[in-house]
Amino acid sequence: MPEFRKDPVTGRWVIIATERAKRPAAFVIEKSTRREGFCPFCAGNESHTPPEVLAYRPQGSQHNSPDWWLRVVPNKFPALVSNEPVKRSGDGMYDRINGMGVHEVVIETPDHNAHVGEMDPHQVEEIIWAYRDRTIEMRKDPRLEYVMIFKNHLREAGASLEHPHSQIIAMPIIPKRVQEELDGAQRYFDYKERCVYCDMISQEKKDGARVVAESEHFIAFLPYASRFPFECWILPKEHDSFFHDIQKNEVVDLAKVLRETMARLKESLDDPPFNWMLHTTPLREGTNAYYHWHMEIIPKLTRQAGFEWGTGFYINPYAPEDACKLLQPGAEVREVG
Amino acid sequence: MPEFRKDPVTGRWVIIATERAKRPAAFVIEKSTRREGFCPFCAGNESHTPPEVLAYRPQGSQHNSPDWWLRVVPNKFPALVSNEPVKRSGDGMYDRINGMGVHEVVIETPDHNAHVGEMDPHQVEEIIWAYRDRTIEMRKDPRLEYVMIFKNHLREAGASLEHPHSQIIAMPIIPKRVQEELDGAQRYFDYKERCVYCDMISQEKKDGARVVAESEHFIAFLPYASRFPFECWILPKEHDSFFHDIQKNEVVDLAKVLRETMARLKESLDDPPFNWMLHTTPLREGTNAYYHWHMEIIPKLTRQAGFEWGTGFYINPYAPEDACKLLQPGAEVREVG
Repeated sequence: MPEFRKDPVTGRWVIIATERAKRPAAFVIEKSTRREGFCPFCAGNESHTPPEVLAYRPQGSQHNSPDWWLRVVPNKFPALVSNEPVKRSGDGMYDRINGMGVHEVVIETPDHNAHVGEMDPHQVEEIIWAYRDRTIEMRKDPRLEYVMIFKNHLREAGASLEHPHSQIIAMPIIPKRVQEELDGAQRYFDYKERCVYCDMISQEKKDGARVVAESEHFIAFLPYASRFPFECWILPKEHDSFFHDIQKNEVVDLAKVLRETMARLKESLDDPPFNWMLHTTPLREGTNAYYHWHMEIIPKLTRQAGFEWGTGFYINPYAPEDACKLLQPGAEVREVG
Repeated sequence: MPEFRKDPVTGRWVIIATERAKRPAAFVIEKSTRREGFCPFCAGNESHTPPEVLAYRPQGSQHNSPDWWLRVVPNKFPALVSNEPVKRSGDGMYDRINGMGVHEVVIETPDHNAHVGEMDPHQVEEIIWAYRDRTIEMRKDPRLEYVMIFKNHLREAGASLEHPHSQIIAMPIIPKRVQEELDGAQRYFDYKERCVYCDMISQEKKDGARVVAESEHFIAFLPYASRFPFECWILPKEHDSFFHDIQKNEVVDLAKVLRETMARLKESLDDPPFNWMLHTTPLREGTNAYYHWHMEIIPKLTRQAGFEWGTGFYINPYAPEDACKLLQPGAEVREVG
């Protein structure tokens, strides 16, 4: 029997329809073959990217030379450009803003074939530090309202290059999806006087059926109203509205939970394409009691089709409780294929 | 120079970033090869679908026999099932509804290889009549609040079968995306005392730069804040809140505009995968002055990646004005490839 489940933050309904998994082509992981050839993100090819804006490299090592273990560079094909003031204007009844913003690439490691789930944990920490350092830096620019950090892994998830990298897009407006979460979390807080994410964490810890990994400071679970099979969220267990307020011990801990979660997904689903996104409170707001920063990880095993585009709802053919079982170490792998 | 453009109904921003089209893999139309083999939707195979709930066939022709020119059957792998009352319940802090609803398939023609852009116009009219007849029928069930009609064409757009078909999912709740449009249209109406879609039609007719096709009663244009390259909307030129109130002459006219639009897309983009969705006022509401039913057509030429999932915004590497030029008859085809 299928059921509708409601995301407690945004109010978005999802249809959990396990019968649908029996359809032909229910899980389509047709991955394109790895491409050979020149990679501008590999060590030694620094001159093929715009000059770095941040690098973690030994003291005394030259900018834009090899020897780094993480680099951040402007995107060569930026979606937004930063050399202008923000200008809003009309076009008849329509509204527009010039494409002001910042678009950067975090080259996560010099190792072209690395995967977050198998990296040295220290290297995963470095990625988190880079996310945090760039957010802090971008917050200094008063034109910017939000910093969106995300990762596309493999072509099916929108990556145009294979070398492990994330992207940062900072913009002069607050994203719709974030605003929906802020509004929903505010409504819940107005009614319950508690953070909706904190309540979710309590219930997930008690239930246990959807928890993938847990450490002192972080928890990873598959959300009750998962839009996609194996969708996974990582949250700090203590309420915190800003990602960039993360502390040193927490970085170590997040790296551990993130690495473990990605290792489980990689092993169980044969290195699936995925996206991850970091959601935090907008730059110009103060700390607050209702919004809880978090990461969302979505493996790309199903296709978004007319129903999803038309409704904004999702049909998920695999319940998160079932998916969670397959993510346990030693579970029979790829049963979903 | 990229720019943000705002959808005047939902307030969703889109980044029109034509520079991005120069990226490797900016337009990925890697279509899977056509599959051979048995098709349950072809004439003669009627016993392989659940019994038809509607068929257009000659008077006297047997139910579930060949001779039909359009059939509607229940989906064999339904996302929702209709044999229960709507029951809402809680699961700790979470909310759910049993998966009550109706899920049907419109087999649009007996011809396995047909394409809407090349069909006999009368056959396209029949598809519209089927959409309308099933909506009218489903409205009689008081448990249902909304009828979502959509089409997935080719595997990349989520179609699991090749034979031309659409789907109808009726459900006990109003879709999020539709509610956003209703709310946005209501806000505009409260401020302007006019329908936002009617205003868009006026401006598009005056501009002309984004209009793909127009007839006495309908207009097809690429929206100002297109999420995707070649996204296209079709609207009745006179304000109308309910699709199912469509009149006979209008059906003929819509068939013409829809067929022409699909022919242009097929020719210019080499038969792209696409989805279309029909948005109309919810079943239980009265006719209203602010919401205008319409069809949205989205070719699948780009992939939704982390930025889109994280923000709810879109990066469109192809401005609708430029796309519109390529859709003119005789334009040099597939320049975007």
